Amino acid sequence: MRTRSWWGWGWTEEALPDDECVALAALLPGLADRPLPVPVIDLKDPRVRAPSALRCRVSAEPADRAGHTYGKAYRDVMRALRGDLAAAPDLVAYPASEDDVVAVLDWAASSGVAVVPYGAGSSVVGGVEYRGTDHRGVVSLDMSTMDKVVEVDRVSRAALIQAGTLGPALEDQLRPHGLTLRHFPQSFEFSTLGGWLATRSGGHYATLYTHIDDLVESMRVVTGAGISESWRLPGSGAGPSPDRLFLGSEGALGIITSAWMRLQDRVVHRASASFHFGSFAAGLEAVRAIAQSGLYPTNCRLLDPGEAGLAGLGDRTVLVLGVESAHVPVEGVLASLRTIAGDHGGTPIPSRDAAADTWRAAFLRMPYVRDAMARMGAIVETFETACTWDRAESLYHAVRADLASTVESVTGSPTIVNCRLTHVYPDGPAPYFTVIAVGRPGSEVAMWDEIKLAAMETLHRHRATVTHHHAVGRDHRPGYDRQRPEPFALALRAAKSVLDPHGILNPGVLID
Amino acid sequence: MRTRSWWGWGWTEEALPDDECVALAALLPGLADRPLPVPVIDLKDPRVRAPSALRCRVSAEPADRAGHTYGKAYRDVMRALRGDLAAAPDLVAYPASEDDVVAVLDWAASSGVAVVPYGAGSSVVGGVEYRGTDHRGVVSLDMSTMDKVVEVDRVSRAALIQAGTLGPALEDQLRPHGLTLRHFPQSFEFSTLGGWLATRSGGHYATLYTHIDDLVESMRVVTGAGISESWRLPGSGAGPSPDRLFLGSEGALGIITSAWMRLQDRVVHRASASFHFGSFAAGLEAVRAIAQSGLYPTNCRLLDPGEAGLAGLGDRTVLVLGVESAHVPVEGVLASLRTIAGDHGGTPIPSRDAAADTWRAAFLRMPYVRDAMARMGAIVETFETACTWDRAESLYHAVRADLASTVESVTGSPTIVNCRLTHVYPDGPAPYFTVIAVGRPGSEVAMWDEIKLAAMETLHRHRATVTHHHAVGRDHRPGYDRQRPEPFALALRAAKSVLDPHGILNPGVLID
Repeated sequence: MRTRSWWGWGWTEEALPDDECVALAALLPGLADRPLPVPVIDLKDPRVRAPSALRCRVSAEPADRAGHTYGKAYRDVMRALRGDLAAAPDLVAYPASEDDVVAVLDWAASSGVAVVPYGAGSSVVGGVEYRGTDHRGVVSLDMSTMDKVVEVDRVSRAALIQAGTLGPALEDQLRPHGLTLRHFPQSFEFSTLGGWLATRSGGHYATLYTHIDDLVESMRVVTGAGISESWRLPGSGAGPSPDRLFLGSEGALGIITSAWMRLQDRVVHRASASFHFGSFAAGLEAVRAIAQSGLYPTNCRLLDPGEAGLAGLGDRTVLVLGVESAHVPVEGVLASLRTIAGDHGGTPIPSRDAAADTWRAAFLRMPYVRDAMARMGAIVETFETACTWDRAESLYHAVRADLASTVESVTGSPTIVNCRLTHVYPDGPAPYFTVIAVGRPGSEVAMWDEIKLAAMETLHRHRATVTHHHAVGRDHRPGYDRQRPEPFALALRAAKSVLDPHGILNPGVLID
Repeated sequence: MRTRSWWGWGWTEEALPDDECVALAALLPGLADRPLPVPVIDLKDPRVRAPSALRCRVSAEPADRAGHTYGKAYRDVMRALRGDLAAAPDLVAYPASEDDVVAVLDWAASSGVAVVPYGAGSSVVGGVEYRGTDHRGVVSLDMSTMDKVVEVDRVSRAALIQAGTLGPALEDQLRPHGLTLRHFPQSFEFSTLGGWLATRSGGHYATLYTHIDDLVESMRVVTGAGISESWRLPGSGAGPSPDRLFLGSEGALGIITSAWMRLQDRVVHRASASFHFGSFAAGLEAVRAIAQSGLYPTNCRLLDPGEAGLAGLGDRTVLVLGVESAHVPVEGVLASLRTIAGDHGGTPIPSRDAAADTWRAAFLRMPYVRDAMARMGAIVETFETACTWDRAESLYHAVRADLASTVESVTGSPTIVNCRLTHVYPDGPAPYFTVIAVGRPGSEVAMWDEIKLAAMETLHRHRATVTHHHAVGRDHRPGYDRQRPEPFALALRAAKSVLDPHGILNPGVLID
């Protein structure tokens, strides 16, 4: 029986043991020689109590409250490790039905209590952490009890799924029907359908179906003005899409309780190939040609030399390509992709699939490694973006230069800045950056904040989005507020004022 | 030099001559023996005058005003043919720049004048016709002077295009760059980019990229609260999409002035095939398998026997398949599609491409034929929808039965109800219906309204969308108002109240 970590990523039992933490310190000179200890939970008493009329389980247990205080950003983990749990919710509610959700919202609205929706807490943008002062208390609305696939329509390949369903449970329930959602974000094991929808999560596909948005047939959302339910439709042009207003609304406009999702047959045919490139710029050109070829590879991941090195793939630019189909053989498509990669200077990496497998193993372990690095005194920031191809290479160089110089001025030490492309579009890539630096004990969070601001500034200067799939939450507000067109901000605020008239829904995310 | 028809579709010179109109009467017993004459334009004087401070051309000419009175729905054409131009705008403004648009809106807001944006007037849902009584006057804002491709980004394959650019002019300006938007709605020749965006138009592709929505990188919109400009991004997860609020907003939230659009390389490889099926139901099963195969044919049009007959393809269910690529040969994909069609009982139609060509010629001529039928006293209604596969066949039968019975009770005569699929998705098709009946002279519009209401009622009962790509306008309001989730209606109304504080933007479409 495994337990969820209250302070860090995933399972407590999967966290790196102390000796492995110490071994990681070799990565960067200046890190600590022993890991930060995990503190004992110490919380103030809850300020509010749930009325007995609420039928769902409501917990005031310290372990529950501590585990629902933060998401999983570096600054969240570090604050938890430092014992800072001042932001802990007063209560954690576990609705078992939509009626329970309505009841919690009604009580919260009448009591001036803020409601922070919580899927599985994998937010890395401060999306599940209340930071305000205007409310009498805070309840974390943990949706994990609503975890069922309610109905499957095999003919239309769609299913009605409750919002609190975790990735693995969702796939487990679809498997007997021969179907899959095929949405596999890095957080898959510890994130829910509702969280994916509320944050416009990015999944499995490198091309074509990148965000969860396109997989939605209809949604049910509990708002302060009633329940919004869109029709199950394969496509529609009846006014602005209702679903697109709630997709990415991060709990500020309502609580998503279920959705009809578009499914797929399970994959039968798979093929992959990997290539080395002489430079990241050369790799970018190859990936652009692939993204514009109409071949839509499932996987198309370009790693810069540093990123490849961290994943154990040597220190050259690596491109990992994958093609999948449930219906037809894919070797022909892979052959066309090979040709494009070769034409752009790619050298095949002989051992087929090796790079993909090595990468995948490293990929899934990364959040645990990040936590171990944090315990060793490293500052680790990951951020991701998207921009058009015409500015991709200059953005890459600018981020590396700006972050290196910022980190040096903040920490006085050298830094690692790596990059990979997670998704690619015909008109541009989605680069993902990792920054590792040496923190000053006790100042890590303030230093991280400075690095984050610098990253947002560089993205803004290149008109690259503040987030491609991590969402806005609270951490990205400085960048998002400048990026969002002002008339749209007015419209969003007006929408919130009617859907959340008491201002209790996840206050602080997206908009004030 | 051709002239635009003020009363009907397209070019005056392309309208069917009287003898061809008479020949069409053979289609249905009971039609007239000579066509309705085209009346002389007779208008009341304009109620408002444009201030001299407006720098753009503003016309009060009767021919301009008559030509901007209606869209091109049957009820529009019939009212024009009956000389009913009571809804004519007082003025037609032709802004040459975004500043001109702002100036017109400012003047209209301060004068209580309604502004009806006008691309090229192809709306078949009352989208460009003011029907209110609350304004001192009405100005039709004709965007056709803003018709330039302003900038091309060859690397990212995108272009900044002004909203008033007509389909052919847009493609003409992209061709020298080797690029194409590849958005070809039936109205292509007489509709504009801005109109496509404002109405979520459906284009060339039967699968994958169906609506214009997915081709948008960023948009500029003049609202009553300033100009909204989103960033050029290949993808983003930064909050709810600003563009998706304006896509489908039909001029009610602002005037779209330009957009960065995603382009494609020009097609090099093409292949197509056609099949007969024993029944429409069998054809539906084949199309479902194709739509769920991940092969994404460019063209996948299923015609029922009546529709095939009208297009000169015999009186059996016909499936027309097409595959296109700018980069790789497509014979392999077509072979896979042939196999699926064959496995589902499709019999190849020997003469390759013949069905596709015959269909295309009939398709482009249809609006002119519709006008000729109207002149011969026929009532012609076309409507389109989308639903999930589990209800597709029952919807098909219900629409045919309900419409036949409605038309018989309304007209006392038999009717023709045909169907084709225009777009198909993995989770459902988009069927398009044509209804032809004999009208009672002078009552055609009232009869059409009854048929339209009956159609919306049948769609509603099957939870099929009131429109897949024709938009809502004013004619679809009864269906749309019931389909739209009420909390979303509140949000949309709140958004309109801040973006259109004086209530002058296309009053009556979408929401009150």
